Amino acid sequence: MAITLNTSDADFETRFAAFLTTKREASPDVDAVVRTIIADVRARGDAVLKELTLKFDRADLDKLGIAVSKEDIAQAYRDADPATVEALKFARDRIRSHHQRQRPQDDRYVDPIGVELGSRWTAVEAVGLYVPGGTASYPSSVLMNAVPAVVAGVERIVMVVPASGGSINPLVLVAADIAGISEIYRVGGAQAVAALAYGTETIAPVAKIVGPGNAYVAAAKRQVFGTVGIDMIAGPSEVLVIADADNDPDWIAADLLAQAEHDASAQSILITDDAGFGKAVEEAVERQLKSLSRAETAAASWRDFGAVILVKDIDQAIPLANRIAAEHLELAVADPEALLPKIRNAGAIFIGSHTPEVIGDYVGGSNHVLPTARSARFSSGLSVLDFMKRTSLLKLGPDQLRALAPAAIALATAEGLDAHGRSVGIRLNLQE
Amino acid sequence: MAITLNTSDADFETRFAAFLTTKREASPDVDAVVRTIIADVRARGDAVLKELTLKFDRADLDKLGIAVSKEDIAQAYRDADPATVEALKFARDRIRSHHQRQRPQDDRYVDPIGVELGSRWTAVEAVGLYVPGGTASYPSSVLMNAVPAVVAGVERIVMVVPASGGSINPLVLVAADIAGISEIYRVGGAQAVAALAYGTETIAPVAKIVGPGNAYVAAAKRQVFGTVGIDMIAGPSEVLVIADADNDPDWIAADLLAQAEHDASAQSILITDDAGFGKAVEEAVERQLKSLSRAETAAASWRDFGAVILVKDIDQAIPLANRIAAEHLELAVADPEALLPKIRNAGAIFIGSHTPEVIGDYVGGSNHVLPTARSARFSSGLSVLDFMKRTSLLKLGPDQLRALAPAAIALATAEGLDAHGRSVGIRLNLQE
Repeated sequence: MAITLNTSDADFETRFAAFLTTKREASPDVDAVVRTIIADVRARGDAVLKELTLKFDRADLDKLGIAVSKEDIAQAYRDADPATVEALKFARDRIRSHHQRQRPQDDRYVDPIGVELGSRWTAVEAVGLYVPGGTASYPSSVLMNAVPAVVAGVERIVMVVPASGGSINPLVLVAADIAGISEIYRVGGAQAVAALAYGTETIAPVAKIVGPGNAYVAAAKRQVFGTVGIDMIAGPSEVLVIADADNDPDWIAADLLAQAEHDASAQSILITDDAGFGKAVEEAVERQLKSLSRAETAAASWRDFGAVILVKDIDQAIPLANRIAAEHLELAVADPEALLPKIRNAGAIFIGSHTPEVIGDYVGGSNHVLPTARSARFSSGLSVLDFMKRTSLLKLGPDQLRALAPAAIALATAEGLDAHGRSVGIRLNLQE
Repeated sequence: MAITLNTSDADFETRFAAFLTTKREASPDVDAVVRTIIADVRARGDAVLKELTLKFDRADLDKLGIAVSKEDIAQAYRDADPATVEALKFARDRIRSHHQRQRPQDDRYVDPIGVELGSRWTAVEAVGLYVPGGTASYPSSVLMNAVPAVVAGVERIVMVVPASGGSINPLVLVAADIAGISEIYRVGGAQAVAALAYGTETIAPVAKIVGPGNAYVAAAKRQVFGTVGIDMIAGPSEVLVIADADNDPDWIAADLLAQAEHDASAQSILITDDAGFGKAVEEAVERQLKSLSRAETAAASWRDFGAVILVKDIDQAIPLANRIAAEHLELAVADPEALLPKIRNAGAIFIGSHTPEVIGDYVGGSNHVLPTARSARFSSGLSVLDFMKRTSLLKLGPDQLRALAPAAIALATAEGLDAHGRSVGIRLNLQE
C-alpha cells in the first residue's frame, strides 16, 4: 500500500517534507574498489579488461574478441524479431526529427562600438556510451543516448556493453547499428568506464561518457570526471500523475505501474482532488499488479515509495508538483494547458489523458533520459547540447581596444593585477 | 624558465603528451572535514555559521549580523573609488548585452501525424553565488556569475562571501548591487555551501550553487551536488597564445604574464613558428616580471608551467591547440580568421593582435568563467543556459496514440515491461 497524504490534514506539511527527502536508493561505497580497477586499467590496459570480464561477466574475450564485429551485428539482426527492428527504426526517426530542432545556432555580430563577439558551437570529438547488461539492457536507451550525439555531429561514438555469459542482447546491437554506432566493445563495469576515459591498446579514449549503470559504473564516472565529461548520474525513475475524477482509474493505475515495474526504488505518485477517484486508482493498481510479469518489483516500489496525495482542488497540486520536480509529470485533467504555464519544475510533461508517459519512453520523439530525484529544479533531460560545447569569440581592432581600455585598466588596477593592466595599456602606448 | 618544445625534435610527441597531462594543482583531501561541517550546519544551522566564522574568518556575526544590510552596501559605495564603480557598471552593461543573446527560444510544434512536441525553458528558482575572500575576491567575477543569472530570470540570487577579519572588499558588495543581487551573507567556506544547499534559520536554501572557491569550497560543492546543482569546479587559469613573428614580443609577454600573475598554478603557453621571436618573448617576460607587484607568483607559474612550443608553420599549431584545449586562446597571427574554423577545442578565442585576453576578463561582454584543464574538449563557459532548465512537452490525442501505439507496445514487449505495454494498450481497448 502506498502512503496517503491529504493537504487538509494538520500535519500535511511535515509529512510531505519528509516524503520529499526520503532516499530511495542505498548508495554502497564502492569508491575504493573502483579506484583500484581504474588504476589497473590505466597500467595494464586490455589485459585487465580481459581478466575482469572473465571474472564478472564469465566471458572469454580472447575467444570472443574485445570488439564486436560486423558479423556479430549481422547475426544480431538475424536473431531479432523483425517487427521490433522496424519499431526501433520508427523510434529512431522520431527521436532524430525532434532532436534536430535542438541544434544551437552560432551567433556572430558586431556591437555599436565595432567589437566583434560570437558564440560558436562544435561537437564533442568522441563520446562513449555505457549500456548495462542484464535486465536493464534496454535498446530504447541506446537510441535515446546515441541519436542526440549523432545529430550533434559527434564523429566517433563508442558503445561499451558487458557480455554476460558471453552474449549481448541482440536488440541492443541492432539499436546501436540503427542509431549509427559502428564501434562497440563487449566490456562493462568500472573497467569499461576506465577504458573509455584513459584508453587501452584496443580502445582509444573519448572526451565524454554518457549512459546509465550500476553503482560501480556511477562511481567510475564520478572518478574519471574532469579527465572526461560525464552526463548526470541517473537515479531510479519516477512519475507524478495529476488526475481529476474524469479519468478511467485503470488508465492511471497502468501509468503508475509502468513506472513501478522498472525498479523497486522507482516512485509513482498520484495527486487528485477526488478521494473516491484516488481509492479507485489504488484498487485498480492492486488488481493490475497480479498479472504483471514484474509484479514483485512493481509491488515493492508501490508499497515503499508510492503515494496518493489528496488536494482540495487541482490548483493546489501546482506548488506540490513544483516541489516534487518529477522526472515525468502527467497532466490528466480537464484543462491541462491552463496548468502548464504554472508548472516550473519537471523533466518532461505529458499533456492530457491520451498521453501516457510510456509514449515518451519509446516513440514520442523527446528524450527519455531525464533528471531524477528532484534535480529537474536545476537540470534538464539529455539533448543535443550535451554533445556540443560553445566557444566564445572576441575580436577588437585598435579603435575598439582604445574604447574598452579605460574600464579594463580600472578594474585590473582595482583587483591588483598589474600585468592585466599592462597587457591592455602596452598596446596603446599607455605604459611600458 | 619555461620549458621549450620543438615539433621537429624526435621526442616531441612524448614530451608534449607528458606536458598535457601534468597536474598543476595539488588536491588536498579535505572530504572528511567538509563532511563534518556540512552535517553540523544541517543539524545546528546559524549557530555553526557563527562559530566557524569566528574561528576561520575572525569575524563576530553576532555583532556584524549574518546578512549584509542596505547600510553596508551604501557604505561600500562610499568606500569605493567612483571611477571603478563606473567601470563596473560599464562592464555589467556589456556582459548583459552579450548574454541577452544567449536566451534560448521555446519550441512548440505539431508533427505530421498531429503529435504536439515542445521544449520549454524556465529559470532556476534560486541560485547561490560563492565569492571567495582575500586576494581572490574579484568584483569582476561577481558580475560574470550574477549577470547571466539575472538575464536568465532567476528570481532569487544569494551571494555568500567570507568577511575576513570582519570586512568584505567594498567593490565586491558594489559589484553585487550593480549586478542586481539583494541578498548577501557574510559567510564563507564549506559552511556557506552547506547553508545554501540545506538552509539555516537565516538563509533559505537555493537550487543551484555557482562560483569559485578553495579546496574546502570545491569539496563541499561536490558533496552537496545532487541536492542542488553546481557549476563546474574551476581549476587554475591558462592561456595559449599562437603568435607569428609579426608581433611585438612585449605585447605577447604581457599577455603570458597576465595569466601567470593569477596563481602559481596558472599556465601560459606560446606557440610560434619563429625561434627568434620565441626567444624575444622569453626575454621580454623576464624583463617585465621585475616590475610586477605579483612578480613572485607570476615567476613561479612561468617557471613551473610555462612553455614555448616551436612549430614549423602556423598550421602545425592547430592540432596542438586542439589537444591543449585551452581556457583562453589568442590568435595573434596574420590571418586569424583562416585558423578559426580549424580550432575546435577552446573556452574562448581572442582574435588578432589587438584582442588581449584581459579584455575578456572584464569588459568584452563574453563570460570569463571558462573551462580549464583541457575540459574545453567537452564543456563550455558559463552562460544563461546554466541558470535555466528545459522541460520536454508531449501531447497526443486518441488518433496520435493509435498511430504510435504499435511501435511503443512492440518495444515495451521486447524490453519485458508489461505495464508499459498496458499503459498504452488499455487506452485503445487493445488489452485489459
